[in-house]
Amino acid sequence: MASCNLSSLAHRFHFISKTPFSPSTPRTKTLTLIPRISNVHHSTSPTAIQTHSFTWDDVLQIPQTDENPPSDLGGYFGKVRLCNRGSEMKSQFVPFVVEGQIAGYVHNRFMDHLRKFHDVFMFPQNNTNDGHSDGSITLHPSLRSPENRTAAVGDVIKVLGEELVPGIRNELYPVTSSFGMPIFFSLERAAAPYFGIKAYGVHMNGYVNKGGQKFLWVGKRSNMKPTFPGMLDHLVAGGIPHGISCKENLMKECEEEAGIPRAISSTAVPVGAVSYMDINGYSYKRDVLFCYDLELPDGFTPINKDGEVESFKLIPVAQVAKVIRSTEFFKPNCNLVIIDFLFRHGFLSPEDCGYLQLLQSLKSGDCS
Amino acid sequence: MASCNLSSLAHRFHFISKTPFSPSTPRTKTLTLIPRISNVHHSTSPTAIQTHSFTWDDVLQIPQTDENPPSDLGGYFGKVRLCNRGSEMKSQFVPFVVEGQIAGYVHNRFMDHLRKFHDVFMFPQNNTNDGHSDGSITLHPSLRSPENRTAAVGDVIKVLGEELVPGIRNELYPVTSSFGMPIFFSLERAAAPYFGIKAYGVHMNGYVNKGGQKFLWVGKRSNMKPTFPGMLDHLVAGGIPHGISCKENLMKECEEEAGIPRAISSTAVPVGAVSYMDINGYSYKRDVLFCYDLELPDGFTPINKDGEVESFKLIPVAQVAKVIRSTEFFKPNCNLVIIDFLFRHGFLSPEDCGYLQLLQSLKSGDCS
Repeated sequence: MASCNLSSLAHRFHFISKTPFSPSTPRTKTLTLIPRISNVHHSTSPTAIQTHSFTWDDVLQIPQTDENPPSDLGGYFGKVRLCNRGSEMKSQFVPFVVEGQIAGYVHNRFMDHLRKFHDVFMFPQNNTNDGHSDGSITLHPSLRSPENRTAAVGDVIKVLGEELVPGIRNELYPVTSSFGMPIFFSLERAAAPYFGIKAYGVHMNGYVNKGGQKFLWVGKRSNMKPTFPGMLDHLVAGGIPHGISCKENLMKECEEEAGIPRAISSTAVPVGAVSYMDINGYSYKRDVLFCYDLELPDGFTPINKDGEVESFKLIPVAQVAKVIRSTEFFKPNCNLVIIDFLFRHGFLSPEDCGYLQLLQSLKSGDCS
Repeated sequence: MASCNLSSLAHRFHFISKTPFSPSTPRTKTLTLIPRISNVHHSTSPTAIQTHSFTWDDVLQIPQTDENPPSDLGGYFGKVRLCNRGSEMKSQFVPFVVEGQIAGYVHNRFMDHLRKFHDVFMFPQNNTNDGHSDGSITLHPSLRSPENRTAAVGDVIKVLGEELVPGIRNELYPVTSSFGMPIFFSLERAAAPYFGIKAYGVHMNGYVNKGGQKFLWVGKRSNMKPTFPGMLDHLVAGGIPHGISCKENLMKECEEEAGIPRAISSTAVPVGAVSYMDINGYSYKRDVLFCYDLELPDGFTPINKDGEVESFKLIPVAQVAKVIRSTEFFKPNCNLVIIDFLFRHGFLSPEDCGYLQLLQSLKSGDCS
């Protein structure tokens, strides 16, 4: 077996060791459609990403080039980096501690905007005076119940408004130290990254096996979506709001996003998880995505019901892999879940240079 | 969704944070057959483990008890701990550095046995005098080629003999910094843990799908095997010696261990990897196991050809899971690969308390 190219693998190790993110140079003018997002020190909304204008024909016609063989994992590493930016900025955040446990992280300049809410939050200098541990932001001790905390922090988010917390959805996410642990309170979904709380989601690869060849159902997001308009997406995916199990949430999303009846969606198989840690301005995303596989019958065609998907297409997995390696067509976090699918279904081989490092990198965030 | 039991999960976190290993208390007198192995400061051969006397009937009759429901992952965590002992002893080892990279770790008292071979090794005090970095053992600079190093270290192993390096097999393992990287030299397989080099293996779950219910082919090791005699094992598994690819090695082992013809074994699917780090006396195992799945036809029956397997049995996966949770019947590292199978095939659910922590723990070693 030939050895890996040393300089190429060194570059990948560079990533693994959490060194500064450096956006990769676009491969081609026509295929790389996401503008470079700079790590500016103020909030950057996903809506800042422009609408993309590629078509299904562009997706289906990505060629296999000599520069881009299936065994070259470089394109996959680039997508993992895309979800794990800004680790060098971690020191600009202070822990957000609830009930003695780290629930999240808040940027020190975002914290300045919270200082006027001194009946809701306690700040590092207060903490020191009160004998708390230095250097963390906590909730005011008068806020003892989850309900009180949810209401008080929710009011703060409303006052901060769209300028500081863009994309408010009126959807609550549980705040906890780890999945399944007691819930400290609930927080507006759009505010989750500004408090650096862990957010959990379900992502489902819907696939069809036609005579031994596997195809993935891929969605193209509506151009009207506020986040990642027009980009490629999983057949079904969604955040896990407060009070619903992963499986129940997945079945609900299956119905709404792809018209998959419960008789079919109930056969979806949980197959693991991926995680990432992405710092961009004041936003500190700590996401964990539970991965599901659903094998669909050959004749089934998904139908979107909530208007969030423009259309679906059934694409050979090998072609989806090419799209991931060569373009930035997919909503960034979908790349990780599909790379995980490629691992589990044998589309990557231990002989591919960087196989183990790529496998590890799919859980670059705090996977708990 | 109910919250996890706090104290139970805290115990698991305890494990994840690499705190001292504490062997679990045997569940029942009849089922726990492995004697407690103390972390004595001299080499402990796997042959020290006594032959086990359980039968297939014992395996098939493990009951489902209230103490042991499928959603209680405690039994799985115990098996991960069994493969990841002694992290608190790491400070007793010094890095083994080749060509400026860490190739392994050597116990400081095992190193004392190497001191007389001063034409083969350079020791911390020599290194300091020579301006090398302090605190590592290296090869003598006169040993420049892989062939010279292999011969010189091989001669040392022969002189040390069975007392210090038990179980010599005359099988060479490649010494490298990471899988696929240039090979520094080759080392007797039995010596690998005494130099703390990373060892790579292939483990294959052979399964049968009968009308939607999955069964695993399980082997019972011959009582004559020097290591883990009489214990349960994968259908096929083996270390990867120097000069052979994972897939080629797997197909060879499929033929020898289970009589699986290439027409079938070539359809085995690479599905990822697990890793562990186990310190026991002078031995520092840093193993990475590439995992494969092979779906076998319903009518196929494996036949062992090399005398290393007493017999095979096709067992429902749910029963195998019970055996893993409740007993120590399996050769320890097989547990990890089967738990990985349980994750990928949906036998574990995100709602199980500790799901994400268990998933992470399957790569507790340096997976590179």
